[in-house]
Amino acid sequence: MTSPTLKFRSIIPYMRGEGGFAFIARGRELASKGHHVVNLSIGQPDVPTPDNVIESAVHWLRDKKYTAYTETPGIPELRQAVADYLNERYGSDVDWREVVVTPGTKGAIFLSLATYLDPGDEIIVPEPSYPAYPEGAKILNAKARFVPLRFEGSDKGFKLDMEAIEEAITPKTKMIVVNNPHNPSGAVFTPREIDELVDIAREHKIMILADEIYDNYVYDGSFKSLISYPDWREFLVYTNGFSKTFSMTGWRLGYIVVRREVAEILSKLAVNIWGCPTSFAQKAAVTALKDPDTWKWVEKISKRYAEMRTLLYNELQGIEGVEAWKSRGAFYLFPRISSLLNKVNMNVDEFVNYIIDNYYLIILPGTAFPDTAGKDYVRFSFATSREAILEGAKRFREAVEDLLSKQS
Amino acid sequence: MTSPTLKFRSIIPYMRGEGGFAFIARGRELASKGHHVVNLSIGQPDVPTPDNVIESAVHWLRDKKYTAYTETPGIPELRQAVADYLNERYGSDVDWREVVVTPGTKGAIFLSLATYLDPGDEIIVPEPSYPAYPEGAKILNAKARFVPLRFEGSDKGFKLDMEAIEEAITPKTKMIVVNNPHNPSGAVFTPREIDELVDIAREHKIMILADEIYDNYVYDGSFKSLISYPDWREFLVYTNGFSKTFSMTGWRLGYIVVRREVAEILSKLAVNIWGCPTSFAQKAAVTALKDPDTWKWVEKISKRYAEMRTLLYNELQGIEGVEAWKSRGAFYLFPRISSLLNKVNMNVDEFVNYIIDNYYLIILPGTAFPDTAGKDYVRFSFATSREAILEGAKRFREAVEDLLSKQS
Ligand SMILES: Cc1ncc(COP(=O)(O)O)c(C=O)c1O
Ligand SMILES: Cc1ncc(COP(=O)(O)O)c(C=O)c1O
Repeated sequence: MTSPTLKFRSIIPYMRGEGGFAFIARGRELASKGHHVVNLSIGQPDVPTPDNVIESAVHWLRDKKYTAYTETPGIPELRQAVADYLNERYGSDVDWREVVVTPGTKGAIFLSLATYLDPGDEIIVPEPSYPAYPEGAKILNAKARFVPLRFEGSDKGFKLDMEAIEEAITPKTKMIVVNNPHNPSGAVFTPREIDELVDIAREHKIMILADEIYDNYVYDGSFKSLISYPDWREFLVYTNGFSKTFSMTGWRLGYIVVRREVAEILSKLAVNIWGCPTSFAQKAAVTALKDPDTWKWVEKISKRYAEMRTLLYNELQGIEGVEAWKSRGAFYLFPRISSLLNKVNMNVDEFVNYIIDNYYLIILPGTAFPDTAGKDYVRFSFATSREAILEGAKRFREAVEDLLSKQS
Repeated sequence: MTSPTLKFRSIIPYMRGEGGFAFIARGRELASKGHHVVNLSIGQPDVPTPDNVIESAVHWLRDKKYTAYTETPGIPELRQAVADYLNERYGSDVDWREVVVTPGTKGAIFLSLATYLDPGDEIIVPEPSYPAYPEGAKILNAKARFVPLRFEGSDKGFKLDMEAIEEAITPKTKMIVVNNPHNPSGAVFTPREIDELVDIAREHKIMILADEIYDNYVYDGSFKSLISYPDWREFLVYTNGFSKTFSMTGWRLGYIVVRREVAEILSKLAVNIWGCPTSFAQKAAVTALKDPDTWKWVEKISKRYAEMRTLLYNELQGIEGVEAWKSRGAFYLFPRISSLLNKVNMNVDEFVNYIIDNYYLIILPGTAFPDTAGKDYVRFSFATSREAILEGAKRFREAVEDLLSKQS
């Protein structure tokens, strides 16, 4: 008889884990063998947390009053700072008691799902998608229905497919997930798309789970936050965090905004999942939001990434079989390479593995972003240096040329 | 029609949250009104994290190489340090890849449950119990079967009831939870009790979920760790953490030890729940485990609490209707007060509220520790100063005397 320690629950074989991780691990291995690896798979700013935030953490650590448990939803001071920030930025009316601080935006996403999803319930997930939404639903024995984004070519980019979203609604649908700006496509959905989505939610009485973690990385066009709707309490659970805006990925701080009755319920769950977010990190997060120095830093980084986006976009021009749209937000370009894959007779995982193993260039296959719509795409990150982008694009071009020449 | 944001999942009305929190909040409110509140409800050391650990965090923050994401199961260095520590202390053979670092022991408990419990599955929980086990099961649509500890009087204290545990096993039982040393009773189960429990697990092919978070606070008698069994991989998921040992409750660091095949699976779940533990805190945790200074600190604190335990125990002697057993571990005394409650015609929640409101003394009712077995008990913490214990015990004695005199 099998050991009981090997009898996992029934969903485990269906968990995908972190799709991109195997590729990144392979790159690390090659680097450790002395190869000059170029990494364009990075999902975080290429610089450490700004100094003022680090020094704030140092201060509160040495102060010693913040090494103990905090309230489960976070210290009131940070909840207030988040509310102030959103209200000033988006003209919303968030009360501090509607903010719940979590270990990362991942924590915010999981907790949101855990609050609403009964086994068998469904969420609608535009794909390709950051994996935490469908995988989080799986952990709760609920289920994602994927709806592909429409790729309207290298001029127009990615759009939400409203008809398909509406068609995917069933009596079990609890929420539609919207990650805006969007990972991995780099789309920033237009205010009109967001309006339409809100109309769908209102009409069908389902919720929207918003993940706006990249909202400080919008390079052109306009961005409409879901927290800016006056009736947000009727349909929204909003998530965001400190990871990308302030390069605080290791600090594990995110937050949920949700109407007050629900915020209290979230804490009842969170107290049994992680207890509270890291205490002194919360104090530093107050500094991150309140100190003008941090915002100067954010502006500088965001400007640099805007340039890097253009650089990478330009470098990818004229590569046979590669249709790149110049994304509008986040750190990513997500070119379609279906005709290339066809010609070289590879699937995207094989293609990416080939590039990593032979050109020491790490990019991610679109399949790392469930469900299957990403199979014709690769994701490049431009949250890195000019040198890395130039060298990475050069290697990519060479790889494509070599592969194509082998075919002919 | 109700807003979709108010349609929580069906388990929500059954969530208890943190049982003790309301009482602690009430105490805080009274303190803020200027009352001199004595707090004997504290579940963490009364001193901050030791200096060497704080300075280690400062060092790694300023180093800036650890402000980014880490591997989901924690940095290899910390996983190795945990394995070394357990192997040296308990003579076990844990491989570093069998250690998964989590945000707190709470994170470790929830992740363990999430790995094994399908909806409808059951866990056996000796009660009174720390709430995270039954509540965590609830979040997963699984269910706790409670088995009361046997209170064998003020001489012998609390015992696991092996027969009742065996009777509670059903075809749906996945695991028995053992928190040792035990919160709230202060019991340290004997090596023989632990052996018997392991025999039950082996025989019925069910698992044991061990929570040994108080293993550095054992004051007398001997303690047998569940990780010390050579065949632990066949039945054990082991949890522990940094919160109590090193007064690092705000840092949110715990860990699971489980056979390697499962450790990999845990990461697939954790990557979608919280991502990874706080990065630089992990580096400081390596210092906590490896630096002899921390262990001198632990020894000092643990000795002091041994004295405080005796002091509090002595102070509670001769109070009418109060049967205190001199606990053997953790920070708690858990006297039975059923005859007192009977005489004053109060339930334990009413009694504790009365004491908080009239004597500004915060203790916790046994009902804060599910299921119902705690209804005849109150929990005192002795993780505090001599003065607080003397003053708290004095107020308690007065309260009991006043209440009794009102009855006669
Ligand atoms: C869309 C999206 N949401 C959430 C996250 C997780 O962020 P956090 O570090 O705050 O958990 C990421 C990180 O890559 C992301 O891309
Ligand atoms: C028995 C027990 N387990 C786990 C915990 C949670 O500890 P952590 O801070 O590591 O999440 C506590 C804290 O009170 C506890 O008493």
